[in-house]
Amino acid sequence: MTYCLSMLLDTGLVFLSDSRTNAGVDHVSTFRKATVFEKPGDRVLVLQTAGNLAATQSVVTLLTEEIAMGKDQPSLMNCKTLHEAACLVGSALRRIHDRDGEALQKFGFDFNPALILGGQIAGEKPRLFNLYAAGNFIEATSDTTYFQIGESKYGKPIIDRVIRRTSSLNEAVKCALVSMDSTIRSNLSVGLPLDLVIVKRDQLRVARHMSIDSSNDYFRQISSGWSEALRQAFVQLPDHDWSQPRDA
Amino acid sequence: MTYCLSMLLDTGLVFLSDSRTNAGVDHVSTFRKATVFEKPGDRVLVLQTAGNLAATQSVVTLLTEEIAMGKDQPSLMNCKTLHEAACLVGSALRRIHDRDGEALQKFGFDFNPALILGGQIAGEKPRLFNLYAAGNFIEATSDTTYFQIGESKYGKPIIDRVIRRTSSLNEAVKCALVSMDSTIRSNLSVGLPLDLVIVKRDQLRVARHMSIDSSNDYFRQISSGWSEALRQAFVQLPDHDWSQPRDA
Repeated sequence: MTYCLSMLLDTGLVFLSDSRTNAGVDHVSTFRKATVFEKPGDRVLVLQTAGNLAATQSVVTLLTEEIAMGKDQPSLMNCKTLHEAACLVGSALRRIHDRDGEALQKFGFDFNPALILGGQIAGEKPRLFNLYAAGNFIEATSDTTYFQIGESKYGKPIIDRVIRRTSSLNEAVKCALVSMDSTIRSNLSVGLPLDLVIVKRDQLRVARHMSIDSSNDYFRQISSGWSEALRQAFVQLPDHDWSQPRDA
Repeated sequence: MTYCLSMLLDTGLVFLSDSRTNAGVDHVSTFRKATVFEKPGDRVLVLQTAGNLAATQSVVTLLTEEIAMGKDQPSLMNCKTLHEAACLVGSALRRIHDRDGEALQKFGFDFNPALILGGQIAGEKPRLFNLYAAGNFIEATSDTTYFQIGESKYGKPIIDRVIRRTSSLNEAVKCALVSMDSTIRSNLSVGLPLDLVIVKRDQLRVARHMSIDSSNDYFRQISSGWSEALRQAFVQLPDHDWSQPRDA
């Protein structure tokens, strides 16, 4: 499995993904789930992937091949809007489904890729899309602060509580790391290193792209600090003595 | 869906379950997921259920009918050990699967009940079992503090962090309520009122069995207090300024 999280804020976008892939517990590997497509000054697109690795790798390969074909081939590097970019990704997904879907079904596997595509193209505001296995997609509106794919449940409560569109990029990264840390602790199929990509509004380039592993000081502070803070918060909640006579 | 949680501690057992049932979003109802079988001084058993309500209700009905048949019929009220009780519940599950499994499959539905059975029978220590749809089961050992069924992921991180076998029953109830509150906030299919059952070691009766709804003062304190405490804990985590030059 995988956990990818992206947030759309007034000041830009934050993408965080893990790198663990497993096909059963015997086949655990490290694969990055985030791919950046960038032409500084013109566009920056970030694609996160979850689900069948064979399918999502093929999708990225198709998209990369389209770019390599040059300017006459519609691709992520020449499309005019992020909506068009989402259509291109959806189309690539459908081609892979056409190629692999039936065979997967014969072997009892679901075709279950899930993707997040976000970024900014010159002339547009930053946008964020969540693509389903069928190649259709939804776009984040002003009510939507984030999308998650993969093992999303463990790390959802903290995002619901602290992140708003007006949150700063630094707050968003902090929250994303807490959300990821909670997921890693409770689910073996999500693991380090993490890929962090930050896109600032109207910069039209990646502001920050880094790999975070267990030697990263800030992540260690967040991880141990959050454990301790949660325990403290729990202790400070009011206590109640339940050892009273039974009720009906 | 549903969320049921049970904890096995040195001093007893805590069971907490929600009461929301949904078959699609158009059919949302309130059904209790916890059933108590009690003969004070001899035994106290608590059964929590998740998954197909039609199946789990039928399981409870079969178990209740066996009890009504009296002392010559093996039942939850005359079995000698909790392991035997788990076998009886598993057997009831299998009979319902024999009755309904094929028809469900024809309609494209999974037979997916999940159950937790815990309590204490005179002569034994408190025990806790997690039963699968196939009627097989696992028992909590000294390394296992809790079992969850249903929508378990949202509320798992806090339990992993604060509950140990040595935790008090009051701490366990507090943690269970926090875990349930996180789940209710992030998942529409889990809702109030809650069923709380507390069993104290060697009392061989229910110590406390109550329904908790939105008017319950302590749950309101936990719910609002936890929101605020989480936000405070988040604010107090170290900040990092990511607006530095880009990395490779």
